[in-house]
Amino acid sequence: MAPVEAEQHPRRSLALAAHNASGRLSPTRISRRDTGDDDVAIQILYCGICHSDLHTIKNEWKNANYPVVPGHEITGLITEVGKNVKKFNVGDNVGVGCMVNTCQSCESCEEGHENYCSKIIFTYNSHDRDGTVTYGGYSDMVVVNERFVIRFPDGMPLDKGAPLLCAGITVYNPMKYHGLNEPGKHIGVVGLGGLGHVAVKFAKAFGMRVTVISTSPEKREEAMEMLGADAFVISSDANQMKAVKGTMHGILNTASASMSMYSYLALLKPHGKMILLGLPEKPLQISAFSLVAGGKTLAGSCMGSIRDTQEMMDFAAKHGLTADIELIGTEEVNEAMERLGKGEVRYRFVIDVGNTLSAASLASSPVPAL
Amino acid sequence: MAPVEAEQHPRRSLALAAHNASGRLSPTRISRRDTGDDDVAIQILYCGICHSDLHTIKNEWKNANYPVVPGHEITGLITEVGKNVKKFNVGDNVGVGCMVNTCQSCESCEEGHENYCSKIIFTYNSHDRDGTVTYGGYSDMVVVNERFVIRFPDGMPLDKGAPLLCAGITVYNPMKYHGLNEPGKHIGVVGLGGLGHVAVKFAKAFGMRVTVISTSPEKREEAMEMLGADAFVISSDANQMKAVKGTMHGILNTASASMSMYSYLALLKPHGKMILLGLPEKPLQISAFSLVAGGKTLAGSCMGSIRDTQEMMDFAAKHGLTADIELIGTEEVNEAMERLGKGEVRYRFVIDVGNTLSAASLASSPVPAL
Repeated sequence: MAPVEAEQHPRRSLALAAHNASGRLSPTRISRRDTGDDDVAIQILYCGICHSDLHTIKNEWKNANYPVVPGHEITGLITEVGKNVKKFNVGDNVGVGCMVNTCQSCESCEEGHENYCSKIIFTYNSHDRDGTVTYGGYSDMVVVNERFVIRFPDGMPLDKGAPLLCAGITVYNPMKYHGLNEPGKHIGVVGLGGLGHVAVKFAKAFGMRVTVISTSPEKREEAMEMLGADAFVISSDANQMKAVKGTMHGILNTASASMSMYSYLALLKPHGKMILLGLPEKPLQISAFSLVAGGKTLAGSCMGSIRDTQEMMDFAAKHGLTADIELIGTEEVNEAMERLGKGEVRYRFVIDVGNTLSAASLASSPVPAL
Repeated sequence: MAPVEAEQHPRRSLALAAHNASGRLSPTRISRRDTGDDDVAIQILYCGICHSDLHTIKNEWKNANYPVVPGHEITGLITEVGKNVKKFNVGDNVGVGCMVNTCQSCESCEEGHENYCSKIIFTYNSHDRDGTVTYGGYSDMVVVNERFVIRFPDGMPLDKGAPLLCAGITVYNPMKYHGLNEPGKHIGVVGLGGLGHVAVKFAKAFGMRVTVISTSPEKREEAMEMLGADAFVISSDANQMKAVKGTMHGILNTASASMSMYSYLALLKPHGKMILLGLPEKPLQISAFSLVAGGKTLAGSCMGSIRDTQEMMDFAAKHGLTADIELIGTEEVNEAMERLGKGEVRYRFVIDVGNTLSAASLASSPVPAL
């Protein structure tokens, strides 16, 4: 049972929260902490909907701390800065991604990979240092330590740029870490959803040859004509798969369905790398021979550091790279979750928080406090 | 059916060959090619027994081209050099490992990873460019292109150095390629056999902290006192495994038995790498979460390039690093194979070819030609 509202934080905020495993989101009053010396307060204008949000509000990962206020693709304007804050000023366009704090002293933190800190505090559904549960970006404001805030470069829109804070860094980070960001290299992208579509865009921005590997023939046109992929392969078509066998330096596997890895690993050149970004529920079946014979790598990757997230955002701005989004109002969020569950979105829902989440806009319905 | 001997090569040679899936090795007359312009002829003095030899002679990989003359840990003296040979002179101490040719023009060859060339010609049981089947080092002599011959540095013994040509490079190559050769890093070695025992020695020579992870409690003393490991963990002991959880930069997995990868991957730090060197028959079960959550890598590795093999041999000589061997005569080879199958060797059998394989030494038994 969450602490009673009045015992938490002094600042009132309005949010969309799920209160049980139905996952249904409803307007809810929450509280936020005062702006600390190292904090910035952010008026939230947009928030992307990540598939993790859906998993969490429905408690599919068995870790929901209700009420859950999801959202870790948060963009908005700084409204207040703490006295130690150096990086930001009131009025700056900023974003907040998947994490709002880490221990800042472990090996991962010191090496600049704080996304793997074992004491990471996620943007929502996580226990903050004061013991309260963190609330995400389906809300009108948030207070965050400046160290975990990303500057939005000039020209990077707050709506279409929001998904880059999770989907963008999730694909950018392993491409950089594993050397899959070099012009002329051939990369495969498995799955053309929220992650996959920005993976294609980043790979093209890096100057790579991109082949989309999909189960859905109807995505061919959008993959090649709208997203700029160089080739499109249906994973169930043995001839198409054979034609690209041994040609790829890397594969970004964004699928979260269980699948045989054998046919995908065969697409890699010797020393090729397949990076897992999704979390299939069932264990993967891997033939050791598939990895040993060509000196191949199967690696996982999760988010990215703040430094890399800023670098990714600056790179995206320079290349005019944004997510393809469907902008929705808060009143459409439950419907959007249903459609997301069915894969019916091209490619990311973004909630227009600034224009549709306010006491006035919700005046017709009573808003319960926690 | 193999071509009749006389149709193959002009030079007579004596070998131990398996003629069927019983795997029983018996003295057999074979032929070798004349020394070509780029070739050296080698009088074989020693040959290590690799587990692959056993798999092949018993046709466990379903690819045996009988008669099979195994052996790819070959050492000896150069007796003849072709007119183009630049690297070697008659009398040089040399070795031949797992491969005797590659295409020399594909991407892998050009990048110096010719061990992953798709047209690789293995030292035995492989089809040579002239269509004949290659014969390995359980034989009195061999003719090899100089490009695939390793110079034995001063002080590197031909008997104890022989296993480095396969076991040594198999562990050295991934340690170098994956950055698991840096002083102070912590490496785990799963399995303490032919590969594992030299992995411990190389890791210590690199200045690393080494933990052996084994199923056999009785190997603790030899691991720590004889091989110099820093710690020893029984993989079935949950408390011992928990005590080293999240502490390793890398793991060399030399086991060829199927095992759950979950508990091993948990031993890695974030960004840690487990390298598979064995080939378990059954598919491995991998939870995607085990890799994604810590940005971890599961990679395979197979042999190493000739350049890296020479580098490994020079490094080993500099550090006085050799394999621990049990030297046997040709008459003991079938018994040795039985013991190898049961894991009863510390840690590599090496056949004393020079002293025990000759027409004279085998005079008591008739030697059939093929």
